[in-house]
Amino acid sequence: LENRIKQAIVDIVGTSNFTDSLIDLVSYSYDASDHEQRPDAAVWPAKTEDVSKILQVANTYHFPIIPRGAGTGLAGAVVPIHGGLILDMCRMNKILDIRIADRLVRVQPGVVYDDLQNALAPSGFCLYGVTRDYVLSLVIVLPNGRILRTGTDCMKSSSGLDLTRLFVGSEGTLGVITEITLKIIPKPIASKTCQAFFADLQDAGQVVSDIMHSRIVPSVLEILEENAIQILRNHGGMKLPDARAMILVETDGYTKEEADFQMTEVINVLKKNRATRIQVAKSPREAEDLWRGRKALSSAAARLRPNNISEDVTVPISKVPDLLAGISRIARKHGLLFVIFGHAGDGNLHPKIMYDRNNPQQVQKISAAVGEIFHLTCNLGGTLTGEHGIGLAKAPFMLLEHSQTSLDLMSAIKNLVDPNNILNPGKMGLRTGAQ
Amino acid sequence: LENRIKQAIVDIVGTSNFTDSLIDLVSYSYDASDHEQRPDAAVWPAKTEDVSKILQVANTYHFPIIPRGAGTGLAGAVVPIHGGLILDMCRMNKILDIRIADRLVRVQPGVVYDDLQNALAPSGFCLYGVTRDYVLSLVIVLPNGRILRTGTDCMKSSSGLDLTRLFVGSEGTLGVITEITLKIIPKPIASKTCQAFFADLQDAGQVVSDIMHSRIVPSVLEILEENAIQILRNHGGMKLPDARAMILVETDGYTKEEADFQMTEVINVLKKNRATRIQVAKSPREAEDLWRGRKALSSAAARLRPNNISEDVTVPISKVPDLLAGISRIARKHGLLFVIFGHAGDGNLHPKIMYDRNNPQQVQKISAAVGEIFHLTCNLGGTLTGEHGIGLAKAPFMLLEHSQTSLDLMSAIKNLVDPNNILNPGKMGLRTGAQ
Repeated sequence: LENRIKQAIVDIVGTSNFTDSLIDLVSYSYDASDHEQRPDAAVWPAKTEDVSKILQVANTYHFPIIPRGAGTGLAGAVVPIHGGLILDMCRMNKILDIRIADRLVRVQPGVVYDDLQNALAPSGFCLYGVTRDYVLSLVIVLPNGRILRTGTDCMKSSSGLDLTRLFVGSEGTLGVITEITLKIIPKPIASKTCQAFFADLQDAGQVVSDIMHSRIVPSVLEILEENAIQILRNHGGMKLPDARAMILVETDGYTKEEADFQMTEVINVLKKNRATRIQVAKSPREAEDLWRGRKALSSAAARLRPNNISEDVTVPISKVPDLLAGISRIARKHGLLFVIFGHAGDGNLHPKIMYDRNNPQQVQKISAAVGEIFHLTCNLGGTLTGEHGIGLAKAPFMLLEHSQTSLDLMSAIKNLVDPNNILNPGKMGLRTGAQ
Repeated sequence: LENRIKQAIVDIVGTSNFTDSLIDLVSYSYDASDHEQRPDAAVWPAKTEDVSKILQVANTYHFPIIPRGAGTGLAGAVVPIHGGLILDMCRMNKILDIRIADRLVRVQPGVVYDDLQNALAPSGFCLYGVTRDYVLSLVIVLPNGRILRTGTDCMKSSSGLDLTRLFVGSEGTLGVITEITLKIIPKPIASKTCQAFFADLQDAGQVVSDIMHSRIVPSVLEILEENAIQILRNHGGMKLPDARAMILVETDGYTKEEADFQMTEVINVLKKNRATRIQVAKSPREAEDLWRGRKALSSAAARLRPNNISEDVTVPISKVPDLLAGISRIARKHGLLFVIFGHAGDGNLHPKIMYDRNNPQQVQKISAAVGEIFHLTCNLGGTLTGEHGIGLAKAPFMLLEHSQTSLDLMSAIKNLVDPNNILNPGKMGLRTGAQ
């Protein structure tokens, strides 16, 4: 970035909200993935108008803008592979409006999830489920600096093209989101938690399928395979049985009876499928105990090797057993140390593979294994990512899941909205004007 | 349409699936709105490949294609104002796949809602809520004939731009949807229904607001204002009290306790707000009785004059009382005969104005009143349409709700996807290439 450009940015936000110091640039060179690249500078905008002015400068001088949240992403979406200016949204962390009677909340993009839940708690409300399904409207700064308001504060609308969902999940490639209005729902007041073990992975898979056939909508349906159980036994200090799979289920409701009824159904399904050591928590404290293994697992596994990768492949729910078995087969074939856990009720599994980045042979095996896992997932009718996004990590695999027609249309939309390709270039496998 | 074009279409679908007979063209010249225009021909495709071939012909010779469902639309979205070829999807009415374990169903676009609900009923599953929120994936034929698959059969995905929602609600302007995969949910087994009356409209509005502040998620929360009650009394033969508003609430659950608990909360709210004649149904039959007025209302009102228009303006939930009062004020000012009812829990009201099309003075008043209602709605932070869509009816009002930036982007996307403007031209207020 030339000095006159840096000066133009400073003129917008002030000296104290701009940095090009080495230590800051190193911090901004990575997220929670393995990818790394240093930006040229970073800026902390305070409001939509700042963002608009910054984008006008970028669009004039054609340098990359990389919008960044808390940097916790696992797919490298905020790593500035073409350099440019990091737009750190951390100062835009306000809860702008809580409107219970309208069942919505309006926030800035830097707000932290727990802060928002805590702010909603006194009213008995919460966020829940898949975030994108709860986005009602957005304020977005387009690459040319124009400010776009999409959607509505209404619970439903059939008015015009749905621009809101086009921008949600676009990973900063189409615009910079500066305000988000989210639907909120009453927080369930009752819940039941239960844990069970299986000597056979197929039985655990059948539990998932049977629960889906039932009238139950569990709020949690987690699965852990045998490696995960082993690691918790051997390295997490937990007294768990030697089993092929563990399932953790939570049901909830606005009455105790509702949560209880659903749990009774769950237990019937567990028993029918030869579950062993079925434990139902009798108190919130016991529920916390049952959660302990699931919560400790990821870091217990991570400690076994210097590096690890976490995937989040997702399949239609009935394919969870096939995906579990397939991932195990692939990882074993390559002699890799791995665990698999995930949200079976969503078909979303998180295989985690531990390795040493300084061992080139391991790196090669990881790379091969991950490719095979993506092939397997897509062959099962699945998606590359349930939660983490495409970013850099999964960009090379887009055509496994999406057709050329689909990727062409995504790329054409990117070119339409951002003809100079200034917004988070090189992400999500989009082909841009230059090619 | 020239004869060689008609022949090209016949070559694709066969003689028996093409028509240009006057009687058919008259049938296809309108939907359930006031708009009317005759197409040049109509075709009944049987499969995605037929649609693809037809669109290739249209894109070569540049004539309009108007995809059409059952023709029940209230906004004129399927009226062929520029002539062209009606693509009647009625033959594509198959339920392709019911996958309970994956909690989804795959259908063709011509499937009738009740048929689908009936097919799901034996498994205890159903569709529910706002349809667009349940669309997982689509097969779409693009204007150039290319076949696009969007989305995934998974319960969640963060993979690439969300093309699915771009096409849902695009009213046939971007592509022809030929397959739809929808999420399904377990059908609640218990429900409670309750009716109450109010001497003051503000009290009824406060009920809506209080219910929103509670932990209740009513499955139904309908409101009827005084004209609606009068019409049911005077012309519907129903014994209702003389009141300013009526509210109908339904709660449901997967246990009887859940539905009962929520209804108890509702009744508390009703009593607190001075409701009179609170009636809770003790049986499904009594519930049906309570529903009778709401269900009879629309046609009872329609019979009072030769013509009527039905709107579906929607506001943030807390603004329902303001919208109700405002619509009444506008309709009275113009001396129009009207009723208002709607889904208060969604902020969605259906004002219905009865008139005589042959009375030019009435037509002028209607037109003025509708414009004022749209202004009011948008000033309250609302949307032109909760359910019916934009079509022709609301196209002139798009800028009341959407900014120029927003409409520009919608139009640019339309031009990108359909550069020859062959798909349902002239709808939704999109500006197309010619302009």
